[in-house]
Order: sequence, then structure tokens, then C-alpha cells
Amino acid sequence: MPARQPPLKQLLANHQFAKPNREFKLAAIDTAAKPFSGGDKADDKAAVDALALELDTLQNLFFADRRFKLLVVLQGLDTSGKDGTLRGVFGRMSPLGVRTVGWKAPTEPERAHDFLWRIHQQLPAAGEIAVFNRSHYEDVLVPVVNGQLSPRQTSQRYAQINDFERLLSETGTVIVKFMLHISNKEQRQRLQDRLDDPTKRWKFQSGDLTVRKQWDAYQQAYQRAIAATATAWAPWTIVPADSKTHRNLMIATVLKDQLQRLKLRYPPSDPALDRLRVE
Amino acid sequence: MPARQPPLKQLLANHQFAKPNREFKLAAIDTAAKPFSGGDKADDKAAVDALALELDTLQNLFFADRRFKLLVVLQGLDTSGKDGTLRGVFGRMSPLGVRTVGWKAPTEPERAHDFLWRIHQQLPAAGEIAVFNRSHYEDVLVPVVNGQLSPRQTSQRYAQINDFERLLSETGTVIVKFMLHISNKEQRQRLQDRLDDPTKRWKFQSGDLTVRKQWDAYQQAYQRAIAATATAWAPWTIVPADSKTHRNLMIATVLKDQLQRLKLRYPPSDPALDRLRVE
Repeated sequence: MPARQPPLKQLLANHQFAKPNREFKLAAIDTAAKPFSGGDKADDKAAVDALALELDTLQNLFFADRRFKLLVVLQGLDTSGKDGTLRGVFGRMSPLGVRTVGWKAPTEPERAHDFLWRIHQQLPAAGEIAVFNRSHYEDVLVPVVNGQLSPRQTSQRYAQINDFERLLSETGTVIVKFMLHISNKEQRQRLQDRLDDPTKRWKFQSGDLTVRKQWDAYQQAYQRAIAATATAWAPWTIVPADSKTHRNLMIATVLKDQLQRLKLRYPPSDPALDRLRVE
Repeated sequence: MPARQPPLKQLLANHQFAKPNREFKLAAIDTAAKPFSGGDKADDKAAVDALALELDTLQNLFFADRRFKLLVVLQGLDTSGKDGTLRGVFGRMSPLGVRTVGWKAPTEPERAHDFLWRIHQQLPAAGEIAVFNRSHYEDVLVPVVNGQLSPRQTSQRYAQINDFERLLSETGTVIVKFMLHISNKEQRQRLQDRLDDPTKRWKFQSGDLTVRKQWDAYQQAYQRAIAATATAWAPWTIVPADSKTHRNLMIATVLKDQLQRLKLRYPPSDPALDRLRVE
């Protein structure tokens, strides 16, 4: 980003939420906004590439340091760009450096446990970065929209998530949650593109259209879930995601800032190694 | 690679082994050879990048096709370049497209099972590519070198591995095994570099030097294990790996060829989707 841009905190003022139940309207956040853009698309793309390489370096240091675990949550409706974010933002890290978990509908053995059971098993270990493509937040979205949870049960789940994430935070996990925010029109275009491209059509599922018809209900469920689970220890960032380049630029910038604030360092080295010659 | 190069089969003649107990001497394979190089290092690097992007496209098709599973095994001594291969060859695939598994010494619960128990759990599913950084082959190397397995027990393990891999092959898993072959001198240099570079020293473990002292025993254990487990359904490729660029070039070329021979295709599409418009 050009140096003339306002500081990150100011740029994020209307997009990052770290206090539960602060009043906010998802609909008031412009999906086409580009607060992190320098104005020129080619420059923005080059900035994303540079950031992805910086994140690779930071990942190496993060792994060596081993004081923290990093959990990145990517949430968003179909076609909102979760896969594209994985490629654009995390794609320059060594495949060993980042573990991605794509969450699907729970299986039968998973459903026989509480909804956080399977999540706990996939959390990052010390020095590890895990990126969740969808997450435990699906469990306060899908069943809410489909009327399978009462308002009381839903509120209980929000509180359970907050407590769970606080445990993780208190035990060294840095949690960064992104909601990829696209417009209804943008989703229509992307689904149509998926249908029209023979190399992408296999991704199309008729269920995509069923979910699309529940657009308003999902927007509302997202708004409530984000408001209820935006905490100091696990803030949400709403990412205007109609522009893929801007989406990657914003996410990479927030992650870089987060990693830099950890003041990562290489572990102290044994002075005896200074003079060691390998035979 | 320039078109004037001999065909792949010929290039691989002395490096790929698909028949058990064929006589071969690991020491006879030159670790500094560059059979896949076009001669110019910059050209070779560009070729690796181009291949990595082609492998990304093939991975997308592999996932869509879903008829196969792909298991890539990377074996080699410390510093032989397993991590570098992951980055150079697989680094352009979407993080969602490839799952890497780094195998360490087995934990106590793992040791309470047969040695293939934990391996089975991490195998690729349909459409998935899994890359093993070390593998079940450690179980016919480490305990052999350390005298914890009798020759009879070792032979039994070779047979168990062959049977296990045949099961996998018969049920749709394509198995590609690479041994990254470096010289003793090259390892000394790389370990020394690790010590001397403050951003890499944290990777250094004094155990690395203990294992290094067992060099000859490891070469012999590798030679025997490869000879015993080179099968038609799970061949070994010995990769001259003193040159990192050549190593990546050779591995990427073999993988691309393997994927192309599967005649991958997009699944048949429902003609009703041809005229569907997203509302």
C-alpha cells in the first residue's frame, strides 16, 4: 500500500469487531468497497504477491518461535472466495507450513458428539498455522436458517463458542476470523460462471441454488452470529469481497499485522554450536 | 525440457525400479547427475516453475475426476530436500489441493499398534493428493540401522509393505515413491549451512550428527528396502538430489507424466444444466 494511506486501525474501524453485541448492520457494509486498495488493480495484485511472500517468511519464524498457534477462520457464502483466499494469501507458504481444513456437513459419528468435538481435534499445535475453510460457525448458521435451533439454543451456542475460543486464546492460540462479504448480484454472476465454464461445472451442486434462495435468512444469521461472537480474544473482520484482489489484499494485510504484533523471534541458540564443524 | 532430450522412459531407465529384488547398487547412482537438465540452470528453474503450474492444473482435474487417489512418498536422509521438494514441486497447488503429512517417530499410542496402522489413517481419499514427508519406510530404516529388527523381521516388514501397497493400488491409489539421493559431502555442507545461518539454526538437532555417523548403515538399509519394495504397483524413483533444481525438475516431470497417463477427465455433466440461468 502507498505510504499515504491511513493507519490500519483506522482502515479497519468499520470492518473489525472485537466487542460482543456491538450494534452493526451487515447490510451497511459495502461489499464492493476497497478500503485497502491503492487505486490501481495491477499494483494491488503486486502488493498481494509481495504480502504472500512476507507471510511465508513470517510463517517460518512463527514455526521456529513455537510460542503461539494460529487459527484463521474463513467464513462466507458459496462463491465468496474462501478457496481463492487460500490460494492467493496462503499459496506462497510451504505446504508444510499451513494446514487447511475444509469443513463439510458433520458425519454420523461427528453428530454423536457436541458440535465443537470435531473442531477441537483439528486445531493448530504450537508453531502451526491452521486455516479453516468454513468452521464451527456453520453450526450457528445452517441449523438457524433451517429452523433446527430455537433462539435460546442458538444463544447458548454463541456463548459456548465464546468460552471455547477463550480457552484457546488463553492457551496460546491466536484466532483471526474473516467473513467474506459479497453481494447477491456478485454471487449470481459467480454461480453462473461456474455453470458456464466446463472446467468448473463439476463444482456446481443444485443445493447451491436452494441455499441461494435463503439469502436474506443467511445474511441475518451471519449478522447475529458475528455480533454475538466478536470478542477481544477472537475478533471478526468483515472483508468486502466483490473484488477478489481487494479481498486478498485486505486479508493478507490484517494477517501480516497480526503476526508482526506477536514480536516473533528465533529461539535462543546454544553458544556451543557457534564453533561446531560438521564432520 | 528441450525437445531433443531422450524419452522419459529412457531417462528413467537407471533411476526407476518397479521389480522387487532387481540387483542394483545405490552407490552406483551418481548423486550429482542431472539427466533431466537442459544444461542451463535458469532454464531448468523456469521449467520447474512451469511444471509446478501444470501440476496445479492437473490437481484440479484429478480432484474433479475423483476416480483415483494419489500418494507421493518422499524419502531421504536429513537435508536431502524433502521440504524443498514440497515447496518447489507442490507449492503452486492450492493449499486445499494437496495434503502433506510429516511423519515423526511414532508416539506411544501409535507404537501400541502395528506400524501401518497410523499410515492407513492418513492415506488420500478419492480425488485427494497426499504427500508423505518420510513414511512407513522409516520403519524399515531406523530400527534396522539401530539393530532393533532381525533380518527375518525386516524381510517380513518388506512383504507387509508390499501387500499393503498392493491393497491400496487395487483400490484406486496411485503410489509414487521418491528417494532423494545426496552425497555424504553434500549433507555435510547442508548441515554446516544450517548451523551457520541464524534463521535456520533452530532446525539443527544434535541427533542429526548421530544419524550422520551411521551414513553407511543407512545407505545399505535404503538399498535393501528399495530393492525389496520396488513393485509394479508402487515403483521407486531414485532422484539425484545434490542439485536442488534438478531434483525438483525430475520429480515434477515424473509426477506430470504419471498424472497424464491416468487420462483424467471432468465428470459427465447434466445436460439440463446447459440452459440453467441462476436467478
